[in-house]
Amino acid sequence: MRWVLPDHIQDALPSDAHRLESLRRRLLDAFRLRGYQLVMPPLLEYLDSLTTGAGKDLELRTFKLVDQLSGRSMGVRADMTPQVTRIDAHLLNRRGVSRLCYCGSVLHTLPSTLTGTREPLQLGAELYGHAGIEADVEILRLLAEVLRLAEVPASRIDIGHVGLFHALAARAGLVPGREEELFDLLQAKDVPELRRMLADVSEPARSALLALPELYGGPEVLAEAAARLPQDAEIAGPLAELRQLADALGDLPVSFDLADLRGYHYHSGVVFAAYGAESPAALALGGRYDRVGQAFGRARPATGFSLDLRELAWHLPIPAAPAGAVLAPPDDDAGLASEVSALRARGEIVMVALPGHEGTWNEAGCDRQLVKRGDRWAVVPLQGE
Amino acid sequence: MRWVLPDHIQDALPSDAHRLESLRRRLLDAFRLRGYQLVMPPLLEYLDSLTTGAGKDLELRTFKLVDQLSGRSMGVRADMTPQVTRIDAHLLNRRGVSRLCYCGSVLHTLPSTLTGTREPLQLGAELYGHAGIEADVEILRLLAEVLRLAEVPASRIDIGHVGLFHALAARAGLVPGREEELFDLLQAKDVPELRRMLADVSEPARSALLALPELYGGPEVLAEAAARLPQDAEIAGPLAELRQLADALGDLPVSFDLADLRGYHYHSGVVFAAYGAESPAALALGGRYDRVGQAFGRARPATGFSLDLRELAWHLPIPAAPAGAVLAPPDDDAGLASEVSALRARGEIVMVALPGHEGTWNEAGCDRQLVKRGDRWAVVPLQGE
Repeated sequence: MRWVLPDHIQDALPSDAHRLESLRRRLLDAFRLRGYQLVMPPLLEYLDSLTTGAGKDLELRTFKLVDQLSGRSMGVRADMTPQVTRIDAHLLNRRGVSRLCYCGSVLHTLPSTLTGTREPLQLGAELYGHAGIEADVEILRLLAEVLRLAEVPASRIDIGHVGLFHALAARAGLVPGREEELFDLLQAKDVPELRRMLADVSEPARSALLALPELYGGPEVLAEAAARLPQDAEIAGPLAELRQLADALGDLPVSFDLADLRGYHYHSGVVFAAYGAESPAALALGGRYDRVGQAFGRARPATGFSLDLRELAWHLPIPAAPAGAVLAPPDDDAGLASEVSALRARGEIVMVALPGHEGTWNEAGCDRQLVKRGDRWAVVPLQGE
Repeated sequence: MRWVLPDHIQDALPSDAHRLESLRRRLLDAFRLRGYQLVMPPLLEYLDSLTTGAGKDLELRTFKLVDQLSGRSMGVRADMTPQVTRIDAHLLNRRGVSRLCYCGSVLHTLPSTLTGTREPLQLGAELYGHAGIEADVEILRLLAEVLRLAEVPASRIDIGHVGLFHALAARAGLVPGREEELFDLLQAKDVPELRRMLADVSEPARSALLALPELYGGPEVLAEAAARLPQDAEIAGPLAELRQLADALGDLPVSFDLADLRGYHYHSGVVFAAYGAESPAALALGGRYDRVGQAFGRARPATGFSLDLRELAWHLPIPAAPAGAVLAPPDDDAGLASEVSALRARGEIVMVALPGHEGTWNEAGCDRQLVKRGDRWAVVPLQGE
């Protein structure tokens, strides 16, 4: 059984691969026309540069290897965002704004869901160098455009803000290890455990943290949050950013979820998750991660999103009938050669017959053939298959 | 120094990544229009399916990992050809001809040359199911076309035939381990070592094997080979195939090298290597490997080629001036929005300005800007940078 693949690993056979490739091009073209420049970071890096600033869950997801040249630990990337941040921080070294995009395979040691893949085809766009909310607005609009181009328009984009959590955790006086535990409980909306954990925390931080899981819904949630959360700059700032997003993105199906703290623990501000009508799982995740660049020697404001192109392509409507192909005889006729070139220039697939395979060409996708009628070559339905 | 990459591993920054992506699309389009269907095998497989039938050098080049789900050994692919063979043999299961193509990163534990990469971007085309020389002719023509499309026309395509070697090695009565040693000596054209190794081998095998390193040059080499090598079917068959190639490909710069035994030791018939005018190293390698499919439960005739797109793109002429981009103000004006859409529809990159970054937009690639002149928006050279 040498052809069996590991669990949660798959081939893309011709029809799936064609869909993936078409969608890849469509989305990378949209990025390019908006000024997002393509970069291709490597599959392999030293482990400390792959996981720096990105949290423990990313490290657990990363396959480790030993470099035979240096003896050092390397990893196969599990997320391309930190790599792109390294490129912005260290290699491009721009004073102003960088808009970058990428598309490549990443590997995960374990799948994130029961039906998930361990080899997502990660596609994303990142905007570096602008701290203002305009960058988050642009990224969220770009995400909505990407989902529209993929023919899975966003039915809901949930927005949260990690800054609220950090401000409240700081007020609660939690030590770093416990802060991470609190983060996980909030993310899971595990309110009973949350109550137990916060039992000794003083007011108003305790009530505020317990309120977070209830603060989700339309923009009205932001007014409710302003009323229920403490009134200080560390809270008011994030809430004001969320209000600006609500105002700027009124035409998109945005909602707010103040306990939603997605991502690889590296986010620092606005975070979001986009859903399609038929997808219970998020199609794309993103947000602001201003601190990651610092690990590469240069702190830069950063915001962006990424998604698994395999998952997205899976939602694409399948074309009713494949395009088909034309079979050409193996003939040296000059008229045939020019007819074949003309057909290919019009985007038709023309494959040349090889002797002895009569009756099998429809299996290869042919539905028509070139035949000589008098002096001319004509395309007719494929016969005798 | 967290931004330092391992040796022989590199990023592709925007201008390189754009060249790679353009070339990738150009070549995959050429494959598609000729009936080669794209497949995307995974980065990871169980080690035995990755290296089956492919020889020891491929196994040494393969990074090994442990599957946390099964406890079995997995590898990161070092060559996609055996994967595509698995897809043809087991998944597509066609009676007739399959034409398949692919493009993806592979990883090598060690670089193959002092300046080589450990992460080639392998692109290739494979033709399964046809044993006749027509398939080799098609693949060699396709390779020449690919190099022409990449603007590095082949200056030389060296053709050899592994069948000659196997026939002579069998006549010499070598045991398998020694056969591999002989293979390496011939490949290296190490004639003194070869003489020593063959000292005890009886004639005519000894003289024939020693003649191989001298049999290179134009098609006249094939007549010389017929004269110098033993006259039996195992020798005459391969020589007849090479003569058919010489006749069919007279318009290409083909030459013959009967000691050239390239590849991952899995080749079984015609083998070839293509060179560009300025490249001492081969740009593409290929040949026939009829026995690999057997390991996946179904022997199928197979021939194809592959190349490293990074290496090929490196030879592409760099455009004299980059395309540039248009800067648009962050303005809600409907006329502006439609002008931006029209520019993008014409393929122009239009990026939206973010406040506070005046004077930095040329760094991001902008050379023009949209400004309002009366009621209309006009594209003018970028000012004040």
